[in-house]
Amino acid sequence: MPALTPSEPPERSSDRRHREIREAAIGIFLASGYDGATMEDIAVRAGVSKQTVYKHFTDKQNLFADIVLSTTDDMDALVGLIADRLSNTSDPTKDLEHLAEMFLNALMEPRVLRLRRLVISSADRFPEIATAWYEKGFERALRALATSFQALADRQLLAVDDPAIAAEHFVGMLFWIPVNKAMFTGDDEYAATHDLALVARSAARAFMNAYGVRRKEPRGDSNRTA
Amino acid sequence: MPALTPSEPPERSSDRRHREIREAAIGIFLASGYDGATMEDIAVRAGVSKQTVYKHFTDKQNLFADIVLSTTDDMDALVGLIADRLSNTSDPTKDLEHLAEMFLNALMEPRVLRLRRLVISSADRFPEIATAWYEKGFERALRALATSFQALADRQLLAVDDPAIAAEHFVGMLFWIPVNKAMFTGDDEYAATHDLALVARSAARAFMNAYGVRRKEPRGDSNRTA
Repeated sequence: MPALTPSEPPERSSDRRHREIREAAIGIFLASGYDGATMEDIAVRAGVSKQTVYKHFTDKQNLFADIVLSTTDDMDALVGLIADRLSNTSDPTKDLEHLAEMFLNALMEPRVLRLRRLVISSADRFPEIATAWYEKGFERALRALATSFQALADRQLLAVDDPAIAAEHFVGMLFWIPVNKAMFTGDDEYAATHDLALVARSAARAFMNAYGVRRKEPRGDSNRTA
Repeated sequence: MPALTPSEPPERSSDRRHREIREAAIGIFLASGYDGATMEDIAVRAGVSKQTVYKHFTDKQNLFADIVLSTTDDMDALVGLIADRLSNTSDPTKDLEHLAEMFLNALMEPRVLRLRRLVISSADRFPEIATAWYEKGFERALRALATSFQALADRQLLAVDDPAIAAEHFVGMLFWIPVNKAMFTGDDEYAATHDLALVARSAARAFMNAYGVRRKEPRGDSNRTA
């Protein structure tokens, strides 16, 4: 189907077209998989010629790499949020619960789950794309968390020996079951049968039980981190 | 290449042949993916005719379902081990550390990781196979863990309100980082750069910090579960 935009201004900016092709490509790759996706389909969905798609993205593999890695840009906002929210907190449990819920909602977006499955599926063939996605996306948030946990430990609001491991444990309690269940049983199954806010709160609380200072038993030495 | 077994006894048991075809199929599916695998290749590797493969497994999809689900049989041993090891323990931290290490080693086997990636890749196309794999495999171990955690709570060796959630948090801290990192960055990368025993121990200890009774602060009420 050709694009239905006959009265569109003749001079769309190249940046905008770039974004539109990328957006169309995400839709096609998610719907058809890497092998099923064609540059033709992507061109049709973007309302441009196939030639234009090639001009912007060289070939299918480049386009795939570009759309996968472009999603890691969203991570900047998340990383900023972690630092903001956690570094100035006076109530780590409450703010961690809030952050956990936002994280979980973000990762459980059907589109994000589909992209995740697609990247895992293609990790054998394009290991550098999958590795870059993991490192530039997920691991960046993990480092931001670790930095914030260290800051909270410095303020004696957390008791962590190794903030990187504490960050891993936090995301593990939060994500392992929902995300993996979705990987195997379908994008909507877990979110449809669970209250993500409750799941997030329970992970945040277990984390604070493991790594919080022991406020309930205020004995001199137990409020101090090692 | 024809099978190089001219002097093979004419009467191999059908069960044994079944297992051999299955074993060959696992190798071919893991190496070539679902689409790349052919019944021909599987027959050659198993040293039987293509007709024999079809006689045992009807078609490629059936064979794939069979080999994926056959791996969940290994779960029986693991489930038995969980019950055994945890139900009679007098030292939950030590036994949980031991169990964590065994679990992690099992899931981080390159062959298991490859199968996991293959099942995730095919979850869109064969949702019932992926769902069955998750439920018959992983979720069975999860339920066994929850049952054992409840038994430990009854013996006042753990403080858990909801043993199912505690089990989810335990496996989350243990698996999320290693398994996901392997999904994206390759089967050997994480295991080659991390000491799995240390990772397991740290998860078990964080779990005991979150869910153990507070032995270090032996005040009357803190040793009792809610």
